[in-house]
Amino acid sequence: MADAKNILFIMFDQLRWDYLSCYGHPHLHTPHIDRLAEKGVRFTRAIIQSPICGSSRMSTYTGRYVHSHGASWNNIPLKVGELTMGDHLRRAGMDCWLVGKTHMMADAEGMERLGLERDSVIGARVAECGFDIFERDDGLAAEGTDGRYDPDGAKEYNKYLKDKGYGGENPWHDHANSGIGQDGSVLSGWFLKNSSEAANIAEYDSETPYMTRRGMAFIAAAKGPWCCHLSYIKPHWPYIVPAPYHDMYGPQHVPHANRSQQEYDNAHPVMRGFMDNPIGKTFSREETRNAVIPAYMGLIKQCDDQMGVLFNWLEKTGRMDDTMIVLTSDHGDFLGDHWMGEKTFFQDASVKVPMIIYDPSPKADVTRGTVCDALVECIDLAPTFVEVAGGEVPGHVLEGESLLPILHGQATETKRDFVICEYDYSASPLADKLGLNARDGVIFMVADKSHKLIHFEGGFRPMLFDLVSDPDELTDLGQSPDHQDIIAQMYDYLFRWARRNSQRTTRSEAQLMEMRRGSRKRGIIIGVYDQNDTPLEFTTFYRGGKAEDKRG
Amino acid sequence: MADAKNILFIMFDQLRWDYLSCYGHPHLHTPHIDRLAEKGVRFTRAIIQSPICGSSRMSTYTGRYVHSHGASWNNIPLKVGELTMGDHLRRAGMDCWLVGKTHMMADAEGMERLGLERDSVIGARVAECGFDIFERDDGLAAEGTDGRYDPDGAKEYNKYLKDKGYGGENPWHDHANSGIGQDGSVLSGWFLKNSSEAANIAEYDSETPYMTRRGMAFIAAAKGPWCCHLSYIKPHWPYIVPAPYHDMYGPQHVPHANRSQQEYDNAHPVMRGFMDNPIGKTFSREETRNAVIPAYMGLIKQCDDQMGVLFNWLEKTGRMDDTMIVLTSDHGDFLGDHWMGEKTFFQDASVKVPMIIYDPSPKADVTRGTVCDALVECIDLAPTFVEVAGGEVPGHVLEGESLLPILHGQATETKRDFVICEYDYSASPLADKLGLNARDGVIFMVADKSHKLIHFEGGFRPMLFDLVSDPDELTDLGQSPDHQDIIAQMYDYLFRWARRNSQRTTRSEAQLMEMRRGSRKRGIIIGVYDQNDTPLEFTTFYRGGKAEDKRG
Repeated sequence: MADAKNILFIMFDQLRWDYLSCYGHPHLHTPHIDRLAEKGVRFTRAIIQSPICGSSRMSTYTGRYVHSHGASWNNIPLKVGELTMGDHLRRAGMDCWLVGKTHMMADAEGMERLGLERDSVIGARVAECGFDIFERDDGLAAEGTDGRYDPDGAKEYNKYLKDKGYGGENPWHDHANSGIGQDGSVLSGWFLKNSSEAANIAEYDSETPYMTRRGMAFIAAAKGPWCCHLSYIKPHWPYIVPAPYHDMYGPQHVPHANRSQQEYDNAHPVMRGFMDNPIGKTFSREETRNAVIPAYMGLIKQCDDQMGVLFNWLEKTGRMDDTMIVLTSDHGDFLGDHWMGEKTFFQDASVKVPMIIYDPSPKADVTRGTVCDALVECIDLAPTFVEVAGGEVPGHVLEGESLLPILHGQATETKRDFVICEYDYSASPLADKLGLNARDGVIFMVADKSHKLIHFEGGFRPMLFDLVSDPDELTDLGQSPDHQDIIAQMYDYLFRWARRNSQRTTRSEAQLMEMRRGSRKRGIIIGVYDQNDTPLEFTTFYRGGKAEDKRG
Repeated sequence: MADAKNILFIMFDQLRWDYLSCYGHPHLHTPHIDRLAEKGVRFTRAIIQSPICGSSRMSTYTGRYVHSHGASWNNIPLKVGELTMGDHLRRAGMDCWLVGKTHMMADAEGMERLGLERDSVIGARVAECGFDIFERDDGLAAEGTDGRYDPDGAKEYNKYLKDKGYGGENPWHDHANSGIGQDGSVLSGWFLKNSSEAANIAEYDSETPYMTRRGMAFIAAAKGPWCCHLSYIKPHWPYIVPAPYHDMYGPQHVPHANRSQQEYDNAHPVMRGFMDNPIGKTFSREETRNAVIPAYMGLIKQCDDQMGVLFNWLEKTGRMDDTMIVLTSDHGDFLGDHWMGEKTFFQDASVKVPMIIYDPSPKADVTRGTVCDALVECIDLAPTFVEVAGGEVPGHVLEGESLLPILHGQATETKRDFVICEYDYSASPLADKLGLNARDGVIFMVADKSHKLIHFEGGFRPMLFDLVSDPDELTDLGQSPDHQDIIAQMYDYLFRWARRNSQRTTRSEAQLMEMRRGSRKRGIIIGVYDQNDTPLEFTTFYRGGKAEDKRG
């Protein structure tokens, strides 16, 4: 065992924090992930920076808040010029590769403006969020009457399936994400009632094992030091899983929905918008939950088994001894809690993610198997990785803080007083319904260990939860006269955060401190009445010479 | 007369708003600039976005606040990827050229990261803040024992002087910015006591007339449509001017310093830091003011005369009929007011600038010669120019608003409730003296027509001025118990501003609105239990097919 030479950065998509046995799930047993937690540190307050895939990932990959990088919704491109963990890691001498999903959308207009071509090394990295690509698979080969959602979705994987003999134009859909009826018809996994079907594919060929093998193929071939982002699409929808996982769980394993009638009746108008949209309504039905949640659990169980495959292989190959392993998600899934589906709101079911970090270094021996409830944000990963790579953390660009002090037992808390999460629904139909312009469909969450405030642009009142007395977040205290001081305190946090210096990224703090004491001996003399008022060395160029004039 | 085809964007450096006769100066007669005001609109509340050259200019050129573009002090580079008025204007079919100063510092590291070369067209524009360069002259060929402040400072101009026979290594200093003693010795303009000397140069060869001729040379050769940024270094220091301007004004023309003992005694600790630095102390001395201010006035008088030369030539050549002319500055100069020198604080002497806009279009006939007291920010120029160029104003990038509605008599106010100005002194010795880290040396000003609040990071109390009852800004109400409601209101403004969406620059508001109503027919189906719950057209790809399997 030695200091980590490499980083294996595993991300699942839409994996709720509490759907792992190490995080307390009563029915879902995930021994392989639990084993990682026993060897590392398990964080219980890891908060994503936006409750939607693309924006959350752009924050994690850039180490910056959504309001800093600007890619505030899926399909809003990350603007050219934004630095990513790949940029920082390569500078520190570590490669940074992708195997799987990023949800990155390139800033095509910005790239064209700067003459960057996608087929150049620099252009490819800009287009791919700073990663070098082993295999990109955003995991959704969706198709409709207006065409493909993502022309490159599951491209290599679909090729793999076709090579294996899976038929049709889109075996990603017809096999990996659909069941099969008795008459041979495709039972699409897009329709939630089909969630309890077995996906019509051999388990070995389904997405999670496939991507695990792709990850191992990368690692087997890689020269170090490397960071490998092994990024799974599952347990993200379509919610459907092959045998034997499809029937491991049933309605008897589905927890009661975390919701109350009072919560629905008194809901804040924006939250009510999410409750009352078709997704919220569907997930509020018990038949949906009973169909979807067992499949979701099966998908996670499969993920865990694949972690077993992967970790065993890492042990066998020696990589477990020189590789930091990080396991996390990009956001959770309401699954009917709070009368909502999907993730685009701010209760823990959505904004809290599992985060387990295993560091092989002997320095981490003191914390193995411990649990940490520090206020952690996913933007902390980038600076952690930079530090592992031996680089200096560029605090003028990265807005998180390295977790190494916690991993090495030198700290039990991060330095922050609060965490931030943001959601921009300006481009969604709900913003239309609420009559909001393109600037007002924005929500900020600020939370510490005791309270969570949700601020809405557009003139709405805030929401407030007391996380200590109401950990289920069922009682909105946003209008409580008794909580005005707390609300003011949380707004102070948000204001402090909003004023932060997020764009001064071309000079480090060390450079700024250097400027304070830097040379004043370059001839700029301000506010000096007489040359005798200032040291000779500052002004030597301006004294005593004779004027020359060769004119005429 | 027709709609403006071209834009002549004239900027002086460090020109105080009230040192022109059209703005009420009692002794300084500036008939040529006044004539422009008679033909256009004179704005009386034009506020710069930072009281220092570089940051103010980066805001004006990008049309964005300092906290948005990040170049928050001189010599903090504008990061690669930031869009400038040049980018927007060229897109609208208008060239954008520089003649004179920008104070741009290129983001060399960012350019290298993206493979951008300064000698390519794209790289040159990125390095030069989006301008194509006719002549760049930042105006300071300062030199000390540690070398040149700016290796390219006044490069072409120094060549010109040498060609004309002015001697020495640096005639910019020895002639244009110094007097000459009776013994032939150089009396450097860097030393304020020499300000009343005549600069040792023929007036024709001094910087302001030289740059005027360079501007005319550009315009004479230019094919339209063009925007020409004619950007003078003067009346910026060194405060020294050639005959006959050097003795046009004397101590009898120097206004009383706008300051009070009570103001000094009760000064906010940060303001006191600026008062007590060597610059503040020097400018608080009457001998300094009596030496400097007459020279400053002479420099402005020369600028005005050059405006006469320029405007006459524009009339003669027909350009006055098809060219919008904007005349403004990058900030003011305390000149001893409030016990300070230079500009790096927030009273009007520093943050308010003259702004005169002449629009040849008949649409502007209704406003000729009028005065406008709308809350204007210098970031309003970029969108104004884009509109003149016939482009669509990219409101997702530009944070100001076009002034054309005011110029055309369709509005008398801008839409904003307040103006913002920021100053980052993190890299200055004062921050050291106050024991501040590199994040806390930041100040925000927020003002409406009645109040101005100054907020300091680092735990200081705010300052407040009542602009109506105390237009001289001598009484700081930051601790007044009677003004806590006003202070809260101003903080609400600042908070609102701080939460603005400044980085979502890759999708326009129109595109976001389009996304609201955009196609849902690309096969992503979320929260649908049964295929019968959703229209056929959305799901046609997922119905009724037979699964194919050619394996084995």
